[in-house]
Amino acid sequence: MDSQHSSPEIGVGMVGYAFMGQAHSHAWRSVASAFDLPMRPVMAALGGREQAALQQAAGRLGWAATETDWRALIARPDVALVDICTPGSSHAEIAIAALEAGKHVLCEKPLANTVEEAEAMAAAATAAARRGVRSMVGFSYRRAPALAFARRLITEGRLGTLRHVRTQYLQDWIVDPEFPLVWRLKREHAGSGALGDLGAHIVDLAQFLVGEPLSGVAALTETFVRERPLPAASAGLAAAADGAAARGPVTVDDAALFLGRFPGGAVASFEATRVASGRKNALRIEINGDQGSLAFDMERMNELEFHDHTEPAATAGFRRILVTEPDHPYLEGWWPPGHGLGYDHTFVHQMRDLIHAIGEDRDPEPSFADGLRVQRVLAAVEDSAANGSAWTPVVHTGVAPGGPQPPSRTDTPVTVAP
Amino acid sequence: MDSQHSSPEIGVGMVGYAFMGQAHSHAWRSVASAFDLPMRPVMAALGGREQAALQQAAGRLGWAATETDWRALIARPDVALVDICTPGSSHAEIAIAALEAGKHVLCEKPLANTVEEAEAMAAAATAAARRGVRSMVGFSYRRAPALAFARRLITEGRLGTLRHVRTQYLQDWIVDPEFPLVWRLKREHAGSGALGDLGAHIVDLAQFLVGEPLSGVAALTETFVRERPLPAASAGLAAAADGAAARGPVTVDDAALFLGRFPGGAVASFEATRVASGRKNALRIEINGDQGSLAFDMERMNELEFHDHTEPAATAGFRRILVTEPDHPYLEGWWPPGHGLGYDHTFVHQMRDLIHAIGEDRDPEPSFADGLRVQRVLAAVEDSAANGSAWTPVVHTGVAPGGPQPPSRTDTPVTVAP
Amino acid sequence: MDSQHSSPEIGVGMVGYAFMGQAHSHAWRSVASAFDLPMRPVMAALGGREQAALQQAAGRLGWAATETDWRALIARPDVALVDICTPGSSHAEIAIAALEAGKHVLCEKPLANTVEEAEAMAAAATAAARRGVRSMVGFSYRRAPALAFARRLITEGRLGTLRHVRTQYLQDWIVDPEFPLVWRLKREHAGSGALGDLGAHIVDLAQFLVGEPLSGVAALTETFVRERPLPAASAGLAAAADGAAARGPVTVDDAALFLGRFPGGAVASFEATRVASGRKNALRIEINGDQGSLAFDMERMNELEFHDHTEPAATAGFRRILVTEPDHPYLEGWWPPGHGLGYDHTFVHQMRDLIHAIGEDRDPEPSFADGLRVQRVLAAVEDSAANGSAWTPVVHTGVAPGGPQPPSRTDTPVTVAP
Amino acid sequence: MDSQHSSPEIGVGMVGYAFMGQAHSHAWRSVASAFDLPMRPVMAALGGREQAALQQAAGRLGWAATETDWRALIARPDVALVDICTPGSSHAEIAIAALEAGKHVLCEKPLANTVEEAEAMAAAATAAARRGVRSMVGFSYRRAPALAFARRLITEGRLGTLRHVRTQYLQDWIVDPEFPLVWRLKREHAGSGALGDLGAHIVDLAQFLVGEPLSGVAALTETFVRERPLPAASAGLAAAADGAAARGPVTVDDAALFLGRFPGGAVASFEATRVASGRKNALRIEINGDQGSLAFDMERMNELEFHDHTEPAATAGFRRILVTEPDHPYLEGWWPPGHGLGYDHTFVHQMRDLIHAIGEDRDPEPSFADGLRVQRVLAAVEDSAANGSAWTPVVHTGVAPGGPQPPSRTDTPVTVAP
Repeated sequence: MDSQHSSPEIGVGMVGYAFMGQAHSHAWRSVASAFDLPMRPVMAALGGREQAALQQAAGRLGWAATETDWRALIARPDVALVDICTPGSSHAEIAIAALEAGKHVLCEKPLANTVEEAEAMAAAATAAARRGVRSMVGFSYRRAPALAFARRLITEGRLGTLRHVRTQYLQDWIVDPEFPLVWRLKREHAGSGALGDLGAHIVDLAQFLVGEPLSGVAALTETFVRERPLPAASAGLAAAADGAAARGPVTVDDAALFLGRFPGGAVASFEATRVASGRKNALRIEINGDQGSLAFDMERMNELEFHDHTEPAATAGFRRILVTEPDHPYLEGWWPPGHGLGYDHTFVHQMRDLIHAIGEDRDPEPSFADGLRVQRVLAAVEDSAANGSAWTPVVHTGVAPGGPQPPSRTDTPVTVAP
Repeated sequence: MDSQHSSPEIGVGMVGYAFMGQAHSHAWRSVASAFDLPMRPVMAALGGREQAALQQAAGRLGWAATETDWRALIARPDVALVDICTPGSSHAEIAIAALEAGKHVLCEKPLANTVEEAEAMAAAATAAARRGVRSMVGFSYRRAPALAFARRLITEGRLGTLRHVRTQYLQDWIVDPEFPLVWRLKREHAGSGALGDLGAHIVDLAQFLVGEPLSGVAALTETFVRERPLPAASAGLAAAADGAAARGPVTVDDAALFLGRFPGGAVASFEATRVASGRKNALRIEINGDQGSLAFDMERMNELEFHDHTEPAATAGFRRILVTEPDHPYLEGWWPPGHGLGYDHTFVHQMRDLIHAIGEDRDPEPSFADGLRVQRVLAAVEDSAANGSAWTPVVHTGVAPGGPQPPSRTDTPVTVAP
Repeated sequence: MDSQHSSPEIGVGMVGYAFMGQAHSHAWRSVASAFDLPMRPVMAALGGREQAALQQAAGRLGWAATETDWRALIARPDVALVDICTPGSSHAEIAIAALEAGKHVLCEKPLANTVEEAEAMAAAATAAARRGVRSMVGFSYRRAPALAFARRLITEGRLGTLRHVRTQYLQDWIVDPEFPLVWRLKREHAGSGALGDLGAHIVDLAQFLVGEPLSGVAALTETFVRERPLPAASAGLAAAADGAAARGPVTVDDAALFLGRFPGGAVASFEATRVASGRKNALRIEINGDQGSLAFDMERMNELEFHDHTEPAATAGFRRILVTEPDHPYLEGWWPPGHGLGYDHTFVHQMRDLIHAIGEDRDPEPSFADGLRVQRVLAAVEDSAANGSAWTPVVHTGVAPGGPQPPSRTDTPVTVAP
Repeated sequence: MDSQHSSPEIGVGMVGYAFMGQAHSHAWRSVASAFDLPMRPVMAALGGREQAALQQAAGRLGWAATETDWRALIARPDVALVDICTPGSSHAEIAIAALEAGKHVLCEKPLANTVEEAEAMAAAATAAARRGVRSMVGFSYRRAPALAFARRLITEGRLGTLRHVRTQYLQDWIVDPEFPLVWRLKREHAGSGALGDLGAHIVDLAQFLVGEPLSGVAALTETFVRERPLPAASAGLAAAADGAAARGPVTVDDAALFLGRFPGGAVASFEATRVASGRKNALRIEINGDQGSLAFDMERMNELEFHDHTEPAATAGFRRILVTEPDHPYLEGWWPPGHGLGYDHTFVHQMRDLIHAIGEDRDPEPSFADGLRVQRVLAAVEDSAANGSAWTPVVHTGVAPGGPQPPSRTDTPVTVAP
């Protein structure tokens, strides 16, 4: 007897199929088996530019059809949700077109390469939401169970008044000065370097966990290796000419460091770098409040360290919570205690929450407005770095702060003098 | 344009759909997207007993059809590979029938509940292999990248001559004496307790890593909580009668501890328990050789600790290797360095290796003979525990030792006096 | 103006001045500055055999006088307390003589090389105690603050009923097969190998923390390297003869592994080895009870891991307690929180507790009877290992169990069948 | 026979006997037993203000005499070395007087409360050195073996070109807003708060390890709790009047965060706080270079994490070096491998190095010039924080940089634009 699927379906069209597209495909494929959903996602169509590679990817990743024009993909009647996994420079155009076409949108982070684009996207999202069309930006780390649980502990007051946020995102993939000048190291394509790629994650995470956006920053950025070999493809002729590898300038930061303040009084330090030898994916965050503290490292993503400062001193200490219990966030879909999850599960959780929001006719988080709030911080960081590290307020106008704040919070600028 | 799949397909039929069936389904669904395979698995049919639940599970887990009789599932022409996820007492009958029907078999661990059953299964597997029919037992932890890499380091001689194996599998799910008397706590259903459930894993792992089977053991077992409340379903009437929860005897071990020796000279300690408060899935193994050491804990499954004893003492120390590099086992299918995998990835790797073995017409590992080698150790542990911890040789007759040994190794008994 | 010392003094005479004598001297020198004591120890005389070396050591370590005959040292009127830091074979003779001379005794561990000697010492200690003469055996690890605190938590019931004790003492100083055949590797001098040297510590510690002596064991021992080069001094002639290093047989164990049971129901595993590459001083112990668990590693001696199993599962986890708070054991004498102590502080604490016991006219712990209880376990381990790992009861006759038990506990044998 | 001391002696006079005086006394008492020294320190006299308390302290800590006037102490003929353990506001006066009197000086950190005082002290030290009189500032953490070894690895080039320095000093002793307004929280006594107390340590350490002084900073500081209860003593009358605890303003920082740059190109982040709940003495530093990385946490002071980036990726990882091997710095005086040291050993090492420098007629490190270099950074931090986090160069005029630089380095200002 054939098995049957009784829940309604929602057709997904995804644009882009590189690393992030593979992770998203895995998630679309898995989410309905792991979680009870109001709608069952169907992997309807994959969009890309080169037909041969696209078709191979679709076959491998499990997409039913392909489209070499993203506009055609958006227009497909079997696509109700557009998942954007392309580089940042194309996000605004695709996302706005999809929202205007009445398609729900999931857009990879960072929301855009500029504040202006992000503003346009947030405006389009607000307009679309009035018509019941939903949008989400893919800050997937919020969905690591340990970080979702961290947010729960903070919301419950287990940390008391927050004092310190201390966060770093450390990688090491361009330590070698002979690593080539890939597109991610060119400003015209990538917008910025470690700042937008890694810094965006920790800014979003800090704002998510604290529950309010940063009010100002002081920053410095650095490019340690200022010239790199051109990639093999583009360097061919030059290299042939004189036997030496042709080089070009790196036009983005290798590292960005900044200090910040939150309106509620907490101070924060941020560091994003691609040259921290030995650190592979060390997204770390520690938060100290007057009742407790939390610490997390993505390299040990199933663990959350929690210190309860109301415990008697003799038995207090950072406890290592394995965030794999049935009542931890998202764990209802997975394995018994102690059986850890991996990086790709964060995307499954993202799809779960997005499908639920669509099915329940409400806005998911993080919203495009949350994405804009991150973009504004990144812009302020670049301004401060260019201006002798001078304190640079971040003005969050026109959008309500994200997170679990009540909707009454006003649209007036929120800044704090240093 | 529709996407197309050019590789040949292999139809899979799975029997059982509880926790382990969910993990296997996830793996069958994902393996072809993550890895290049000689054949693409198709989730043809799911077998179970209750039609309604079975059909719901098939829909949720992605199986195309259902069968309420496992014999019918084996007989289906679209099923070329039978995946057995039922309790251990049914393994022998299903596996032997499938092999005799010319179907490849993946059988969950432990291979069987008794040595006799395991011997019959191993014999059937040997006979089937002569006809090109393959079989594998599901000791999936061998496929955790860190443990596969540990085996590689040992094979390469990085540890030198092995001296110590120190392994524990610690869980805590029956610490509470009011936890009910589920079937896993009854000998007639489960065969043994922590010994067969957890001990089987660490015995297989130790034998896999060392590369030879144990030659003898001295053991003790313990049941700390000897009576437990009957589960709600079966306790209804009794409880109604007198207001107190009816209780029944626990007939398996809560914990098993044993010492062992390997033919090559290493000594070993093993501990399996379900009452180690705070330890959720602490499968740990440490191996010390005269050139280096390794340590692993499944609660941090993406890490392997490695000490190189040939390093100058001043800079030597256990290094924490994040086993997420492109040249680590299985990582070619996954994410960038530092982006960890989870428990369920071990099953994807298992399916990958099984499909490759079938496609390349060779026997996969761990074989049913490997499963039998584990079963014999478990039986010796029970004998020793029943006999005042007396040293009990493990006689591995009739099957070649597993692991990467050359095929010339003889079938004569291998034992070592304590 | 000269400073003055108002508290009474107690003269100390120490025999032996190797590694352990240096640690003891440091402790005698420091204890009165760190702690309030009823008597101030005075480092009166140091005993040894070679006058030149002895005098140099006394000058360096701060002893006022020297004696080349330990009997003369005992007889000195300015010596009220004899501290024995010689090899184990001389302990019984010196300790018994000192006790009979009315001198308090601190004797390094192990108490003796044989059960017979230990019995004689315990009898002498009991007789001396009736005359107000005190004795203590130097299991100094009991005085690591984290372990003293662990005992407090267990006594307070924070672990509930104990189920598991899991302990290892791992070192690696004889991994190299060319490490010479020093006296510690000869049975006639050292009694046993890793068993007496390292195993004695973990047996005492387990009995101390659990609060009762082991009732039986099953064991195996191993000597991996059976021949080693003779030390340079003794090998001279042989080497000269044929150009090759002369070798001799190792007559003690390199490693000892055993399982055990406590009368209260807990099961235990022990491992002592000198060939665990990369483990320098890894005295580890983990105890699981039905209300909580503890874990400790001497390589991180300022930390105790504590899991409170009564905590809700979502926020439970092993917490890392820095045992440096003012209300932790012995910390009143030291530094602010987080400022760790070292190995030598355990000796200062030992001297503190001994001086207090003498000053308050009561018996200190661990007593010679505690030392005897360890010796009997070690003897049972050797018996079991020689007898095919057979379960070997440990009969604790004639002495009351140590630890905080009430004095009413009887002298009848305490054994438990496996 | 009495023991004899053949090495020459050097008389020490110490001013101040609080926490730091206790640690120094312990070190003076122990250093000659642990290490071979050219001179044996004699604890000649202790200086303080209240005779009764002073005398009791001298008796307890082992000082032969007392002086209630520090000038008298300096003048004593049996005092050749003056050890200053008083609050920072008195350092300059005492140190300069001692140096001018021809006495060697050890001065606790921070060198002074202001740059002006520090400059005067550094000038006095330079003048004294010409007469063979030596001086040292007590940044004792440089003498933690792990940090001394870290410096060695950096000097040997094991980290390559340095990119990042990431350091925090986190404590939590004033988290409670009801913690009283002790003198350390008043600017007039303490100069600054976490900045001078904790920040001074990590600035010195970073400059020591990198081998050059910071060239500029951007900073923010924060006082979270702006009013605190007056200490019991001074609050008596006010409290009596109205039943509520009288409060006063906190006039120093609770936390200071800053970014910095080194002339060699490395960027750095610093954070010092007294309100990081659960962090007791978390002086942490991580340094990333293009050939390797180091990480250290004072809460685990016997460990250094080292990543060798020249190792193949598959076996690379942060290794945990137990810095207790015989060839690690300072370990020749202590215990076997794996037997850890404590906080107080850093002071013993400090005394060892100071005595050696005096005996060998050369300047010890860290010099008063090093202390001045720290002071200038702290002043720049306060300037930047008061000036909207603006980048603030640190001008190191008039003194040669510290550390192992060649003496040819010039006196010209060294700054780097952000």
